[in-house]
Amino acid sequence: MATKWGILSAGKISHDFTVCLRSLDPAEHQAVAVAARNIGDALKFAANHKIPRAYGSYQELANDPNVEVVYIGTLVSFHYSTTKMMLEAGKHVLVEKSFTATSQEARELIDLARSKKLFLMEAIWSRFNPVFTLLMDKIKTKALGDVVSVNATFGLDLTKVERLIKKAAGGGTLLDLGVYTINVIQVAVGNKKPEQILATGHLNEDGVDESVAVAFKYSDGQVAMMSNTLRGQMPNEAHIVFTKGAIKIPVPFWCPTKVIVLTGENLSKEEVLEFEPPKVIAECNFVNSGFLSYEASHVRDCLVKGLTESPILPLDDTLTIREITDEIFRQVGVHF
Amino acid sequence: MATKWGILSAGKISHDFTVCLRSLDPAEHQAVAVAARNIGDALKFAANHKIPRAYGSYQELANDPNVEVVYIGTLVSFHYSTTKMMLEAGKHVLVEKSFTATSQEARELIDLARSKKLFLMEAIWSRFNPVFTLLMDKIKTKALGDVVSVNATFGLDLTKVERLIKKAAGGGTLLDLGVYTINVIQVAVGNKKPEQILATGHLNEDGVDESVAVAFKYSDGQVAMMSNTLRGQMPNEAHIVFTKGAIKIPVPFWCPTKVIVLTGENLSKEEVLEFEPPKVIAECNFVNSGFLSYEASHVRDCLVKGLTESPILPLDDTLTIREITDEIFRQVGVHF
Repeated sequence: MATKWGILSAGKISHDFTVCLRSLDPAEHQAVAVAARNIGDALKFAANHKIPRAYGSYQELANDPNVEVVYIGTLVSFHYSTTKMMLEAGKHVLVEKSFTATSQEARELIDLARSKKLFLMEAIWSRFNPVFTLLMDKIKTKALGDVVSVNATFGLDLTKVERLIKKAAGGGTLLDLGVYTINVIQVAVGNKKPEQILATGHLNEDGVDESVAVAFKYSDGQVAMMSNTLRGQMPNEAHIVFTKGAIKIPVPFWCPTKVIVLTGENLSKEEVLEFEPPKVIAECNFVNSGFLSYEASHVRDCLVKGLTESPILPLDDTLTIREITDEIFRQVGVHF
Repeated sequence: MATKWGILSAGKISHDFTVCLRSLDPAEHQAVAVAARNIGDALKFAANHKIPRAYGSYQELANDPNVEVVYIGTLVSFHYSTTKMMLEAGKHVLVEKSFTATSQEARELIDLARSKKLFLMEAIWSRFNPVFTLLMDKIKTKALGDVVSVNATFGLDLTKVERLIKKAAGGGTLLDLGVYTINVIQVAVGNKKPEQILATGHLNEDGVDESVAVAFKYSDGQVAMMSNTLRGQMPNEAHIVFTKGAIKIPVPFWCPTKVIVLTGENLSKEEVLEFEPPKVIAECNFVNSGFLSYEASHVRDCLVKGLTESPILPLDDTLTIREITDEIFRQVGVHF
């Protein structure tokens, strides 16, 4: 039986995700309905992606008995209300990162999904990328010894992008870029909570975080740091230092096609592994969006097994990431 | 007239510095005396480097009327006492980084040098490297716009190096590696004082800093971060993000032979500039030590001009770097 997907929001990321669904085996994945606040947008999206039903309201999607799991691709500021609506209608949900604008909202959604025994996952696609699979394996097997530190940056010149510079849209660096730097750090330290988070930065005129720098302390002698900005392009790499080696994830570290494993004296031995994104049937908006296929397949795997949480990205990990973000907001002075 | 150098300490870095002096024009630089606590070491060093006089005590070097400027290459823990002794004897001084173990000691030495109108400089050789000259030029001319952020790491597996793991020797990451990451950040932000310093890390059993992560906030919307460790090899690069480009200083960023200037849309235009270290007449202990020649030449230039401080590394910059280090020590819990 194919997994029957509803697509909530007809924006750019919904396009890419739906292209991936349609590129997978139709015996396994079907996009059966799409909803947008504007029926015209929904109809256009449905025609483009050959989706049988289009709705001009999210409630209609929630009411569609044919929809099994909903992919939510709205702005962050709509994640809480839409996810809640879908869970209350008995749908499983995959919601784009960042999960919610606050960790209080995250806790409410997690409680709701658990009480209703429905599947819920944040769409941090990085975790289903083969480079992250390799990273998690090296950590688990201690092939490079213990993790000592993590360094990640994600910054772009986004000063002209409305949704990122406005607080009402859930703007700022952290919810859009920071979720990726926090994610790679959390993966590298085994998803434990930091012992200390120290954050500083600058806000723009609308009160959202424009540039941040964060230092983390973890148990087992580990430290980490990350920086994000909307004002210029950073290296956008992640680097994990181990006691017996290092792993470098080059740009774009959030959806990488390449990883460099360094070992030996002075890390002189370099092993480069490359991965192609799965082929897709139509053009996408974002870089390497083909990797979204792995995320979609993972959701289906979980549903087929009757799981309500992903073992790769359980809701406690999402909550930890969200709580870290809130603590950074608090220290930097952002109030959502 | 040649500048007449006294060499204080016959260790590895003194060797490299003296090799550079001897590789410069002898009409400009002469090593005229060397002192070590052990006369045997001094005699061996003198023979090796064809230095006419060798002393078994630092006081004898201070008393030598032929010595004009003293290069101090001891462990950090001896910098304060030796620099003070030389200044009191009327010598100009170039003292290895880190300047002193505490900023209080730094202030005392600076006051002493100023009151006696003697030249004093910390030997942060990076500042005289052509890559740093280029960086300072790009900042001054705003060729790449304004500086947005800086990211620097310096970590090596040094867990077996006694002088670094022992507090009595002035060990830890900060005095040895951190001085370089702080230096590149301070150069990039134009040597102004940070508005906020947030530091975390882990101490080893002897109470010295083993791993640190630090986030900085500066005026003009700037942020920076750095991380150091003794437990594994980091990228050991510095990356400066501008509003219209970026400068990457690859490993070894503290004595680089290469710089990458990134400009254009998505920083797609890459300009790579390479610099050879000046040729030297004998083998050195450390990587790219030939660049120490530029530092020696700069000291002579200052002395010839009658300057008591370097315009490239004035004592206020040294004090700022030292105060930043002390604040990091305070937050991380290191007490020298």
